Amino acid sequence: MVVTGEKNTKHQVVIVGGGFGGLYTAKYLANANVNVTLIDKRNFHLFQPLLYQVATGTLSPGDISSPLRAVFSKSKNTQVLLGEVSDIDPKAQKVMMGNQVIPYDTLIVATGANHSYFGKEHWKDLAPGLKTVEDAIEMRRRIFGAFEAAEKETDPEKRSAWLTFVIVGGGPTGVELAGAIAELAYKTLKEDFRSIDTSETKILLLQGGDRILPHISPDLSEEATASLRKLGVVINTKTRVTDIENDIVTFKQNGEVSSIHSKTILWAAGVKGSTMGKILAERTDVELDHAGRVVVEPDLTVRDYKNIFVIGDLANFSHQDGKPLPGVAPVAKQQGEYVAKLIRRRWRGSTLPQFHYNDVGSLAMIGQNLAVVDLGFLQLTGFPAWVFWLIIHIYFLIEFDTKLLVVFQWAWNYITRNRRSRLITGREAFTEPQTPVNKSSRLLDA
Amino acid sequence: MVVTGEKNTKHQVVIVGGGFGGLYTAKYLANANVNVTLIDKRNFHLFQPLLYQVATGTLSPGDISSPLRAVFSKSKNTQVLLGEVSDIDPKAQKVMMGNQVIPYDTLIVATGANHSYFGKEHWKDLAPGLKTVEDAIEMRRRIFGAFEAAEKETDPEKRSAWLTFVIVGGGPTGVELAGAIAELAYKTLKEDFRSIDTSETKILLLQGGDRILPHISPDLSEEATASLRKLGVVINTKTRVTDIENDIVTFKQNGEVSSIHSKTILWAAGVKGSTMGKILAERTDVELDHAGRVVVEPDLTVRDYKNIFVIGDLANFSHQDGKPLPGVAPVAKQQGEYVAKLIRRRWRGSTLPQFHYNDVGSLAMIGQNLAVVDLGFLQLTGFPAWVFWLIIHIYFLIEFDTKLLVVFQWAWNYITRNRRSRLITGREAFTEPQTPVNKSSRLLDA
Repeated sequence: MVVTGEKNTKHQVVIVGGGFGGLYTAKYLANANVNVTLIDKRNFHLFQPLLYQVATGTLSPGDISSPLRAVFSKSKNTQVLLGEVSDIDPKAQKVMMGNQVIPYDTLIVATGANHSYFGKEHWKDLAPGLKTVEDAIEMRRRIFGAFEAAEKETDPEKRSAWLTFVIVGGGPTGVELAGAIAELAYKTLKEDFRSIDTSETKILLLQGGDRILPHISPDLSEEATASLRKLGVVINTKTRVTDIENDIVTFKQNGEVSSIHSKTILWAAGVKGSTMGKILAERTDVELDHAGRVVVEPDLTVRDYKNIFVIGDLANFSHQDGKPLPGVAPVAKQQGEYVAKLIRRRWRGSTLPQFHYNDVGSLAMIGQNLAVVDLGFLQLTGFPAWVFWLIIHIYFLIEFDTKLLVVFQWAWNYITRNRRSRLITGREAFTEPQTPVNKSSRLLDA
Repeated sequence: MVVTGEKNTKHQVVIVGGGFGGLYTAKYLANANVNVTLIDKRNFHLFQPLLYQVATGTLSPGDISSPLRAVFSKSKNTQVLLGEVSDIDPKAQKVMMGNQVIPYDTLIVATGANHSYFGKEHWKDLAPGLKTVEDAIEMRRRIFGAFEAAEKETDPEKRSAWLTFVIVGGGPTGVELAGAIAELAYKTLKEDFRSIDTSETKILLLQGGDRILPHISPDLSEEATASLRKLGVVINTKTRVTDIENDIVTFKQNGEVSSIHSKTILWAAGVKGSTMGKILAERTDVELDHAGRVVVEPDLTVRDYKNIFVIGDLANFSHQDGKPLPGVAPVAKQQGEYVAKLIRRRWRGSTLPQFHYNDVGSLAMIGQNLAVVDLGFLQLTGFPAWVFWLIIHIYFLIEFDTKLLVVFQWAWNYITRNRRSRLITGREAFTEPQTPVNKSSRLLDA
C-alpha cells in the first residue's frame, strides 16, 4: 500500500531499531502528521562510534547513551516501544512482537549488523566483538583483567600471554582499539603496577586486506600505520586468522602459518546483517547479499514493497558507484533523513529522486593527538586531525543530547532533572561460558 | 607481634578492603616507611553514598568509582592486589588468597558489611539491596524496566503492580531511593510515556522503627517525613515486613497485617558484617555482635592481637557512648586515619590514646532542592540543606579524585590520559534467578 493522505485514520509509521538510521527517521518525522512507533530492544540509543572508548575505560556507557524516551519526550506523535520484533507480515502490513501485533502503513527496518566470524561462530566467546554496551563492558573487563592477572602471575610465559593483546580487523574499530590499548599499556598504566612492566605489553593488529583503514586514502592509511607502529602496535596485513583455541591465535600471512599466545583476543572484523534481514527475505523474497544485508532499491525500499524501507548497516545500497555504501553512521543518518522526507512527500502525493549519499569523509582516532581525517578535498593527520575528530564527535553527540559536553554534568542533572544514565543493561547478555577473564578471577582461588 | 622499627626488613602492612576505611588507611600510610599491600575484590573504590544515584539513573558507575591503582599510582610503597582473602592465620601473621600467602606485620580488616535479610536470605532475589555496582545496575534495570513493562501492560491490576515501588528500610539509603524514584515518576518521566501516566506511581517506604532517619534529630526526621510525603511517598513506620513472595509484600503495622502487589521491591534495611568477621572470630576468638560485626578494643584492635585492626562498617566500636558507631563513611575514614597514625607512632616506639569519633553530623538527600542536614550545632532543611549536601559530596569526591566535578570530563580524560571508568564489573554477579525485570523482558514474547 502506498502512502496516501487519509484524513480520518492517521498514517502509521513503524520503525524497527533505534540506531542512527531509526533515530534520525523518527526525528525527521517528529512533527509530521503521522503516528510513529519506534521499536527497540533497548531503552537507549547508543553512540556506537565511541563504544571503543567504553571498552578501554575512557567513557562510561551512560556517556554515550541517550534514553530513547527522553529523545522523543516532546514528540507527541512518537511512541517508543521496548521489545524485539519476531516477525513481519508484509501483506497484512503488520509486525509481530511475540503475541503483540502492530499494524503499519509504512515500515522502516533499521536493525543494523553484527560481527561475522566467517562461519566460526564458536570464536565469539574466545574473541568477543564490540557492538553493544555489554560487549564493551566485557571487553573492558578482559583488558583490565588481563593486566591484573599478569600482575599476579609468576610464570613468565603465562605472564607474557596476559600481556599480549590480539585485535582481529584493521577497520576503524580495530585501529581505535589498538591505539587505545597501546596508550593504556605504554602511558596510562605505566606507574600503576608493582610486579609487571606494562611497557612489555605486545599489541598485534591483524588485517586481512593489504592495508589498514581500507575506506580512507592509501596515503592516510600509511600515515595511520606509521603512527600506530610508533605507538608500539605490531601490524600484520594480508593476514587471515585460521584458528582460535583458548589462548592461541593461529594466522596465515603470505602462506606462512604463525601462532601467538594471547589471553585477550578482540574481534573487530566482518559484517553480518541482523536477523531481521533474514525475516524480510523470507517474507518478501528480497535478495540478501553474501553478508546477509538486504539489497535495496534506489529509493531504499524493498523490491515490490514501496512501503517497506531498509536503511543503515542492514541495507546494501549499491546504486551510487556499484559498491555497497559503508556501514557508518553518516550513511544511516542520511538514509533516515531521506526516508522521513519521502514519507512526507508521499503524504502530499509527491515523491523524491533516488537516495544519494553525500560522502562526508572518513576519520579514525589513533591516540593522544593522533588521528587521520579524509574529507576528500582535505586530508588531515596528527594533532589537527585529532582536534577535528574531537569537534566532529562532540558536534554529533550534542545534536540530540548535550551528554558529552558534560560541563558540570552532575549539577546539570539536578537542575534539569535529566537522568542521563538510565540504560537497562541485560543480565541475559552475561550468560556466555567462562572465558579468559573468568579464568583470571578463578586464579584468585588457584 | 607489636610493631617495631626494624631497619632491614620493612614493616609489612596488609589492608583488606578498599572502601573508605581501607582507602584512608592506605592514603595516610602512603609516604610512611612501611610496605603497604591493599587487597580488594574489585579494582576500584566505590563512593557508596552516591550509589543510589546510579540505581536511579542520575550517575554512571564510572562517575563514583576510582581505580585503586590510579589512586596509589604515585605511592611506591603501596601495592594493590586484586583478589579475595580466603583465610587468616593470626599466629603465623599471614593472610591467604587461595594458595597465595601474604605475610603481614600489621593487618587491617576493612571489608565492610552487607544487608541483613533477618534470616530470610531467599528474599534477596525478590528484594535486592544496594551495596555494589552490580546491585545498582540491577536496581536501575528493575526500576526503569518496571515503567517499560507498565507501558506495555493492558491489565490494570498488573499495570498497577508494575507502577508500585516498595522500599524496605527508612535509613538514608531508603529515604534517598524513595525520594529519587518519586522525582523520576512524578517529574522526570512524566512526558516520556504514551500509555501510562507515571503520576499514578505508588511509592511505599516501610520503616521498622518509629521514625525514618533515626540517626538524625527527631525534628529533622519529621521534616524529612513531611518533605517525602509532599513528594508523594507513602511512609509506614513501625512496620515490619513479614513475607515477600513474588510480587506481594506482606507487612505488619501495629499488629495489623496488610499486603500490597508490587513488582519492584527494594531492600535498604539491616546490617550484616562481611564474612571476614566470621573468619576473624574463628581464628582469634574475638567477639561478634548480633549483626556479625567485630567487637573491637578502644584502639580498634582485636582483643589479644595488637597488630590486627578492624575498622569501618565491620567494626562494632562501642567505647564512646556505649552504642556502636554508625556504619557511615566519616567513621570509616576517621578510623583509617587513626590506624595509620597509630602505626606510624608505634614505629617510633610511641602510641596514641584510644580512638575517638569526631561526629561530623548526618545528612540525607530527599530530592530536588530538598535535603536534611544535622550538624548538631546547626540544622538545615530544604534548599540550603540541598546545597550543603551537594558541596559536601563534591568536596569528599574530589579529595582523592576530581571525578564528579566533571568539568569537560571528556577533554580532561584525553589531556591527562586518565581512565576514570576502568572498573571491572563481573559477569558472575548476573547469575541470580529470574526476577521482575526478566519477567518484563519475557513479556516481549508473551
